Amino acid sequence: MKVGILTIGNELTSGKTQDTNSSYIARELQVQGWPVVVMMSVGDDHAAIKGALDHILALADALIVTGGLGPTADDITTAAIGRAFGRKLYTDEVCLKHIQEIFKEFRLHWTENNAKQALFPEGAETIFNPVGTAWGFSLRVDGKVIAVIPGVPAEVKIMLPEGVIPLFRKAFPEASRHVATRIFKVFGISEAGTDKLLSDIDLEALGVEIGFYPDFPEIHVQLKARTATEEEARERLARAETEVMARLKDNVFGYDEQTLEGVVAELLTERGLTLAVAESLTGGLITDRLTDIPGSSKFFERGCVTYSNRSKTDLLAVPEDILKEHGAVSEQTAVRMAEGVRRQAGTNLGLSTTGIAGPDGGTDEKPVGTVYVALSDGKETYCRHYDTFRWDRRRIKVLSAQAALLMVKRYLKDEIRHEP
Amino acid sequence: MKVGILTIGNELTSGKTQDTNSSYIARELQVQGWPVVVMMSVGDDHAAIKGALDHILALADALIVTGGLGPTADDITTAAIGRAFGRKLYTDEVCLKHIQEIFKEFRLHWTENNAKQALFPEGAETIFNPVGTAWGFSLRVDGKVIAVIPGVPAEVKIMLPEGVIPLFRKAFPEASRHVATRIFKVFGISEAGTDKLLSDIDLEALGVEIGFYPDFPEIHVQLKARTATEEEARERLARAETEVMARLKDNVFGYDEQTLEGVVAELLTERGLTLAVAESLTGGLITDRLTDIPGSSKFFERGCVTYSNRSKTDLLAVPEDILKEHGAVSEQTAVRMAEGVRRQAGTNLGLSTTGIAGPDGGTDEKPVGTVYVALSDGKETYCRHYDTFRWDRRRIKVLSAQAALLMVKRYLKDEIRHEP
Repeated sequence: MKVGILTIGNELTSGKTQDTNSSYIARELQVQGWPVVVMMSVGDDHAAIKGALDHILALADALIVTGGLGPTADDITTAAIGRAFGRKLYTDEVCLKHIQEIFKEFRLHWTENNAKQALFPEGAETIFNPVGTAWGFSLRVDGKVIAVIPGVPAEVKIMLPEGVIPLFRKAFPEASRHVATRIFKVFGISEAGTDKLLSDIDLEALGVEIGFYPDFPEIHVQLKARTATEEEARERLARAETEVMARLKDNVFGYDEQTLEGVVAELLTERGLTLAVAESLTGGLITDRLTDIPGSSKFFERGCVTYSNRSKTDLLAVPEDILKEHGAVSEQTAVRMAEGVRRQAGTNLGLSTTGIAGPDGGTDEKPVGTVYVALSDGKETYCRHYDTFRWDRRRIKVLSAQAALLMVKRYLKDEIRHEP
Repeated sequence: MKVGILTIGNELTSGKTQDTNSSYIARELQVQGWPVVVMMSVGDDHAAIKGALDHILALADALIVTGGLGPTADDITTAAIGRAFGRKLYTDEVCLKHIQEIFKEFRLHWTENNAKQALFPEGAETIFNPVGTAWGFSLRVDGKVIAVIPGVPAEVKIMLPEGVIPLFRKAFPEASRHVATRIFKVFGISEAGTDKLLSDIDLEALGVEIGFYPDFPEIHVQLKARTATEEEARERLARAETEVMARLKDNVFGYDEQTLEGVVAELLTERGLTLAVAESLTGGLITDRLTDIPGSSKFFERGCVTYSNRSKTDLLAVPEDILKEHGAVSEQTAVRMAEGVRRQAGTNLGLSTTGIAGPDGGTDEKPVGTVYVALSDGKETYCRHYDTFRWDRRRIKVLSAQAALLMVKRYLKDEIRHEP
């Protein structure tokens, strides 16, 4: 069963409001196994709405429309749909009474234009709105189903799962197939490189589809199996997952909704370990990410953003000799920073970054993008040198923070490679 | 001149990625006075792309397409557009050389699929990509102009104004008037509040248009003058700006492309002052933002992310008595943190944040969203208490960091109000 999405409103085509409904609806339909073949946005205009309805209904079996159900003059969705399919509008008395009760309850002043929200095209069935005055409706046209709901995102998030999806499942029982998906979160190889590593997998034989979604600095690889039974979908996915993991190995740091900081937080919590961080070029980005995790105070003790040489000496006890001889951007400094912050904070682990984020400050020997990341556990200190971060200042920071968090994850999963 | 927008990618129709390009493009076209008549998103599919092209070109004079220009097998935009209009693909040697140079420079491994990015439909003119390997192109079809650019938002934000808009202005000179815009960046009042403050300005008499664009946690107010001559547009804008600033006053922290951290950096540099930061709930977000500014080491000495009580005592010399008596989230602690970090770092200014980001940890007396921000200059310490940040964890952090940076800006512009 193919579905189309139409969002209506001048605020969308003028760029004033970001349409978040289409993306949310598409994701929910994907879970149902109903592909979205087209998404459209048009302004509050009869001809534009009719054109969009015609285009989508030529491609899809069902259509979800959001927006333009308010009481004001520029809300014309119901009228436009009625006109497009030659249906007059009628007043639904149950809906009208509900709206009038809401006005009473909130002591709002009733004006006649509010009765407009109880108008529906002939043949429509109403869709109850439990959180507002804008009820939706569904309409059957030539064997296709159109569902219309308001455009307020909070209302969509209730009326889609509670109103529209059950309606579609009833209207298209044969299209209730099962879908299983798995997202692999990859860092350390490019999109093309990931694609190449996986290119010899026989997707057709496994009965799965694959998609690559770059989300800087990560690549998200999505596997999807769509079959008649839930069990079969899960089995196909499991077989394909084995193939993918055999090729991507520890370049995969997480799955589905996991974030790298979330994975690190979980591993630290599981093992009852604590972490302190000393950041130079990343400037607080690592600890900002770690402290986005609720309850991070359980494993995160402190961070030192040691931008000046003096702060490296003061807070981390990096010897002045080291800074003089090797410079602030060096393996020696990174190692001393990680060891220093661990010791000062009294934590199990100490993590550090130092490097040149640019655009200035690079030299022939140490160009912009030269980065050192180090991790100390009190016995050993691991340090890694990066010289391939050739981007702008922000992305060098993002890559460096990611590399540092990855080092912690690898350490905690015993995947770390000691690179002296 | 009417324009349509088509964004292409399975990641859009599957709901995996939120399309932010359409909204951004619509807003930029609106500035030029070119209405967007339809926005569409389709997957990486030849028939769907052809259907969308036909639908949009029947309605619009020009079309902007984004996405599907990558090197992998599912990137088919160029091939689909070529096929839709019966144009074979050719290799652009200048583009190919540019891509190969990028691979050399970044020491990336060249694979043959990357050459695909240098293919264009016959008759196309290339659009240079200054920040990536995916060049765009424009194509004329029956008097209409199609411009195709990659889907990476950062690349769209460069290639739309630098590549596509000049191209459209040249192709449709009669629809090209002079446009002058000014964006006022507002923090501290709501969109409705901003609207109300400005509601008595006679926009028609001034010959300008106004738009409100919420960009959490800021409101961006855009003034726009569109006239026959550049001089007239600029004059109108200047007159309107006086009216706006008389009403918004120091709720405006910057203009156009300015960021709050950029404004703070400029003021500190101008006055030759240095800053140290002690962050509790913001977790490094303030120093992350400050160190995004090139050359921030000139004014930024160090940051301490003091998440534990012990780190507040160790690094900032906050007395244990204060923590015990008033708690880590209190005016007293915020003040001692700001004073402590200033003294330890030997900087002119010390900035601090402490608060409850949630979702847990709130009490009746100090609910989630309770935040204290303090700034010390060695003579006086200013502290402000916020209790209206009722959002999720991330947004409470973002609001708190913004409030802290705003305090520094107000101090440096002598706008600060001492709130004991």
